[in-house]
Amino acid sequence: MRILGIDPGLRLTGFGVIEKTGEKLSYIASGTIKTTQGKGAEIEDLPSRLKIILDGLAEVIATYAPEQVAIEKVFVNVNPQSTLLLGQARGAAICAAVIQNLPVAEYTALQVKQSVVGNGHAAKEQVQEMVKRLLKLPGVPKPDSADALACAICHAHGGQGLGLLATAGFRVRGGRLV
Amino acid sequence: MRILGIDPGLRLTGFGVIEKTGEKLSYIASGTIKTTQGKGAEIEDLPSRLKIILDGLAEVIATYAPEQVAIEKVFVNVNPQSTLLLGQARGAAICAAVIQNLPVAEYTALQVKQSVVGNGHAAKEQVQEMVKRLLKLPGVPKPDSADALACAICHAHGGQGLGLLATAGFRVRGGRLV
Repeated sequence: MRILGIDPGLRLTGFGVIEKTGEKLSYIASGTIKTTQGKGAEIEDLPSRLKIILDGLAEVIATYAPEQVAIEKVFVNVNPQSTLLLGQARGAAICAAVIQNLPVAEYTALQVKQSVVGNGHAAKEQVQEMVKRLLKLPGVPKPDSADALACAICHAHGGQGLGLLATAGFRVRGGRLV
Repeated sequence: MRILGIDPGLRLTGFGVIEKTGEKLSYIASGTIKTTQGKGAEIEDLPSRLKIILDGLAEVIATYAPEQVAIEKVFVNVNPQSTLLLGQARGAAICAAVIQNLPVAEYTALQVKQSVVGNGHAAKEQVQEMVKRLLKLPGVPKPDSADALACAICHAHGGQGLGLLATAGFRVRGGRLV
């Protein structure tokens, strides 16, 4: 089973594709989709930026043919305008998956860290290190790719059962639903 | 020129299609896309709801072949979770347009009311009444359809010039940019 993990953002959307064969996980691809031009210069209009996310993920899906998609539930920012922008980026990412009729599971950062590191409050570096180990990578992946790969690993661990339950509002602590 | 106006929302997305011939505006179609089942029972998972918005607007675009899209800038809610959900719905609506390579203009509710009623703080009923008059409808359209039609009318009034300027952060008051 191939899983595409997505860490959505308006400037930077991370993606990671892994394959699960029995209990074995292997790395297929990962990267980021940027909606900025050159040295941080931003493309002004939102529709164009959403199209970049949509087209970028469509290309990833066409190239690596994942069968399931796992997407991180984003932080609600203190700035409502930022929350709205992030929501729109996440909406575009989900659209890229549902257009292809791929099932989409949602996980909070806490669930992802719990599943990958065994600690819901693990630091970014710990996530990167565990992603490297679990997928037997030669080096640590960059943060955005690592988060997307971690989200895919979380889905692979939870599979159909726990993963879907988790999205229904349950939380996992120490391997048990709470 | 055919314009599709969209009033995005997670539960209810209003749409309205109008045609501009010279200075004359005519009504083509309007309606709402609902992501609720039956008597307010909601479909739980977000990806399915975004797909309904995406597919619904794709059908509207395929049926009425608009050449331009105008979408309302949504309110930032006091509840961050609601803001995030609304953002995702709006993202899906914009995706439906950009997939078809349609240009998308954005207008705030204030700009729409200013353009349609001549008062940025007009009541909902005044917007419905003016939409009815401007499009020579036999009755007042429902609020969600009216807002979508008003957004399309705002774009038709502003056209390429004022409309695009307006989205760049300017505001219109008494017919002048401020």
